[in-house]
Amino acid sequence: MMQSKVTAYDSTLRDGAQAQGVSFTVEDKLKIVQQLDALGIGYIEAGNPGSNPKDLEFFKRVAELKLQHAKIIAFGSTRRIGIKAADDNNLRSLLSANTQSVAIFGKSWDYQVTDILRTTLDENLRMIADTIAYLKQQGKEVVFDAEHFYDGYKANAPYALATLKAAADAGADVLCLCDTNGGTFSDEIFAVTQTVVKAFNLQVGIHCHNDCDMAVANSVAAVQAGASQVQGTINGIGERCGNANLVSIIPNLQLKLGLNCIPAENITALTHVARFVSEVANMPFNDKAPYVGNDAFSHKGGMHIDAVNKNPISYEHINPEQVGNIRHILVSEVAGRGALLSKLREIDATLDKDSTDTQRILARIKALEHDGYQFESAEASVQLLVLRELGKLRPSFEFKEYQVNIHEPALNGVNSFAHIKLVVNGQEETTTAEGDGPVNALDKAMRRALERFYPAIKTVRLTDYKVRVLNSDQATAAKVRVLIESADQNESWTTTGVSTDVVDASWRALIDAIEYKLMRDLV
Amino acid sequence: MMQSKVTAYDSTLRDGAQAQGVSFTVEDKLKIVQQLDALGIGYIEAGNPGSNPKDLEFFKRVAELKLQHAKIIAFGSTRRIGIKAADDNNLRSLLSANTQSVAIFGKSWDYQVTDILRTTLDENLRMIADTIAYLKQQGKEVVFDAEHFYDGYKANAPYALATLKAAADAGADVLCLCDTNGGTFSDEIFAVTQTVVKAFNLQVGIHCHNDCDMAVANSVAAVQAGASQVQGTINGIGERCGNANLVSIIPNLQLKLGLNCIPAENITALTHVARFVSEVANMPFNDKAPYVGNDAFSHKGGMHIDAVNKNPISYEHINPEQVGNIRHILVSEVAGRGALLSKLREIDATLDKDSTDTQRILARIKALEHDGYQFESAEASVQLLVLRELGKLRPSFEFKEYQVNIHEPALNGVNSFAHIKLVVNGQEETTTAEGDGPVNALDKAMRRALERFYPAIKTVRLTDYKVRVLNSDQATAAKVRVLIESADQNESWTTTGVSTDVVDASWRALIDAIEYKLMRDLV
Repeated sequence: MMQSKVTAYDSTLRDGAQAQGVSFTVEDKLKIVQQLDALGIGYIEAGNPGSNPKDLEFFKRVAELKLQHAKIIAFGSTRRIGIKAADDNNLRSLLSANTQSVAIFGKSWDYQVTDILRTTLDENLRMIADTIAYLKQQGKEVVFDAEHFYDGYKANAPYALATLKAAADAGADVLCLCDTNGGTFSDEIFAVTQTVVKAFNLQVGIHCHNDCDMAVANSVAAVQAGASQVQGTINGIGERCGNANLVSIIPNLQLKLGLNCIPAENITALTHVARFVSEVANMPFNDKAPYVGNDAFSHKGGMHIDAVNKNPISYEHINPEQVGNIRHILVSEVAGRGALLSKLREIDATLDKDSTDTQRILARIKALEHDGYQFESAEASVQLLVLRELGKLRPSFEFKEYQVNIHEPALNGVNSFAHIKLVVNGQEETTTAEGDGPVNALDKAMRRALERFYPAIKTVRLTDYKVRVLNSDQATAAKVRVLIESADQNESWTTTGVSTDVVDASWRALIDAIEYKLMRDLV
Repeated sequence: MMQSKVTAYDSTLRDGAQAQGVSFTVEDKLKIVQQLDALGIGYIEAGNPGSNPKDLEFFKRVAELKLQHAKIIAFGSTRRIGIKAADDNNLRSLLSANTQSVAIFGKSWDYQVTDILRTTLDENLRMIADTIAYLKQQGKEVVFDAEHFYDGYKANAPYALATLKAAADAGADVLCLCDTNGGTFSDEIFAVTQTVVKAFNLQVGIHCHNDCDMAVANSVAAVQAGASQVQGTINGIGERCGNANLVSIIPNLQLKLGLNCIPAENITALTHVARFVSEVANMPFNDKAPYVGNDAFSHKGGMHIDAVNKNPISYEHINPEQVGNIRHILVSEVAGRGALLSKLREIDATLDKDSTDTQRILARIKALEHDGYQFESAEASVQLLVLRELGKLRPSFEFKEYQVNIHEPALNGVNSFAHIKLVVNGQEETTTAEGDGPVNALDKAMRRALERFYPAIKTVRLTDYKVRVLNSDQATAAKVRVLIESADQNESWTTTGVSTDVVDASWRALIDAIEYKLMRDLV
């Protein structure tokens, strides 16, 4: 059985927020809701008003947004043991969120009922039935999240199914099957989901975790078995190893199985949304993320590059533009000259492979690589280098000198002092700064010197800083290669520097980072 | 059909090295081989001597290692179009690696043959057959990697199967089916693999990529269909979205399906090996990695912690100790640190797990780890730390202060000057030195100060120097972790330092490196 449409149900703001190191402000949550809505997500599970009273402010404000696609879901649990649903404080909080749709989780694993909840199997069934019947009386659309459903099914299938029947009989609109511990394999997910789909005349959902590194495959297997609601999070953020990653699931379903998940024209926004959520959550973005990562369509091996130049399907399972991503032909020692040439043409389409300009640029890159530069991940530095060689870059400033003093133990709590001299528009500019270490002091001094002339520098954040030692047999006299990743509101870029001195290598990468920003702003 | 044993085939050093930003030195590769061998990996695909002449030095040196489990594989392609296998330079290079086993990749997708290789379908079959027959004549064990097999099967099943038949008839020992572009789903992988397993009386392997976020599930599906060799890489490093992650696959097969992949007693080393490779590759370790990540068994939600305290199976699919990982819950992080305890007993056999000494050392290590230290690969620093805590280390010198001045441009050709003050045997010693960068200047100044008292220091060479940025969102104010590897005639050892200042972090690691040498000489 294959349905033509699958509803995407996002829990980034609820289950995702359970991840270590993640916490969203109300503003963050509102921004993410708007991005998810624009993407075309069907449901956004946005908080648990019972366990987090702060969520109520969010629900009040989100109600004022005009959403195009998404229904907002408030999440809560079945009523407490031995009381009426109408008397349960958590359910009262849930209702005060005032959403049209709610999700209720209940226990489907007999062991969890008897040993963790510590009540009877019958009372658990009543808790599910009472809670859902009460919410339906209040006019809500109700998703029942059957927690630990697959573990429960393996332990006691009749009881696990009885919990679904209690929910269905009470009026639940969706039965969502959860692999809460993430320990189930795709073949089991398929078989058990198919059993449920056949047994109930209701929409079935799937909610997977990634503890076996299979959450995406498991979600797809459940859809192939007939599930038509897929729960997950953006970038797979979530507790432990994360939730199923909607950023992989959506294109898998939409581009590979031809199932509608979000409006077809929106799928090109996927790369943007994934990076946006990563920024707001202040988490490093996974370069290797399927579909949307920086490396997802990067080609390094010379033979691969040659084949991709002949036809991208040689080493690409989809066209990167379909999801708003781009192809990167990496410049590296493994690649032949063909790779470098197609990179150069990206920068300046008029470059011919036999021109003297091209030959000079290639010779310069080769010499720098020999010195330890590696340009495959520092595209901004490559671009600056090419433009400099072509005489097309007007430098924004001229470097004169710096001095750095480091003291250990620190003097009055300060470890590093930088003094720097630059020339901007013919004007000599001298600044000093203190910092946490020499590179930080230099960074601060340079910004202090340049911000007066170029206020746009204030929007540049350094988002990553990597150091690689090259000829490590030279020990502390070894060359080091520094990579610096920077970002403003619109894009991120990587620059590089090489030197026997880590401070100097960092300085070169820093200069390029700022020069690139100023060059882009002029374009 | 379910086989009882599956061979783990690691390609971290070959396909993994194709990843963006990854490059291994010969020393790095030898260290990783030893770790993989100790883990019990069956095959280690370690390089492509035809495309990378530097690999030959590695193959020469790896032959000198005494490996317990692993066979080393040299990797290459089928012979070129229209020549004899014996005349092919790449095959000559492959043979010069002098391994008992080789892997040969060839085209199984008709389109790749006609449009990328640009030869006839028949010539491609001859290229496969000739190459394998020639290598078998040379007495090699041959794995045939059928590149793009699944895409080829979808496009032209009879031809894809004909390429396998050509390899099998020529004597191939293993037919490995590759999902080169990573675009295939688990159900297709299962069905096609099962067809091949039934059609050939040969061992079948599986080689997956992660472009659909399904590489692990696909590898497991292939095994469930009868494949008995699984190719992958440690941490899934590899081109684009990476290769199938052996660190997830091995416990999935071993702990969930009861298949032997590596010796059962070794699986507790998995977390260590994953972190070791990540350090050597100088890649950030994924905290959310299934089985081995720092967060894989972390519990944040209050309800989850309560349930895990009642019984861990509530929210854990396996016991973290099975793979050498630990549970993180707010109260007792020390629980499950069996690995660390056995490490402590290696250093001092009298240490009891409940002694106050042990508790104090564990608390100290925990505090340092919180500050960014990571002791997985810096055993010399661990040893010094333990001996210091036990009051068993008589310091060879006492640090007073240093100052470093850096000038750019260099003054009279010198970029960095270090001034340092130490106390040795109650005597204050002040030295200065010039160097290539601040760390080199400090290193030289320290040696100058100490060599008079401890001439043995002259035998110490610093053989590797790695820098890792920790909280990279802090950019140039981020903490850095430095690893320094040192060696004398007899052994090599690794030390570590953490600071917001790369110079200071290096200095801490340098001090430990020298202190360790002097301590060992006294033993």
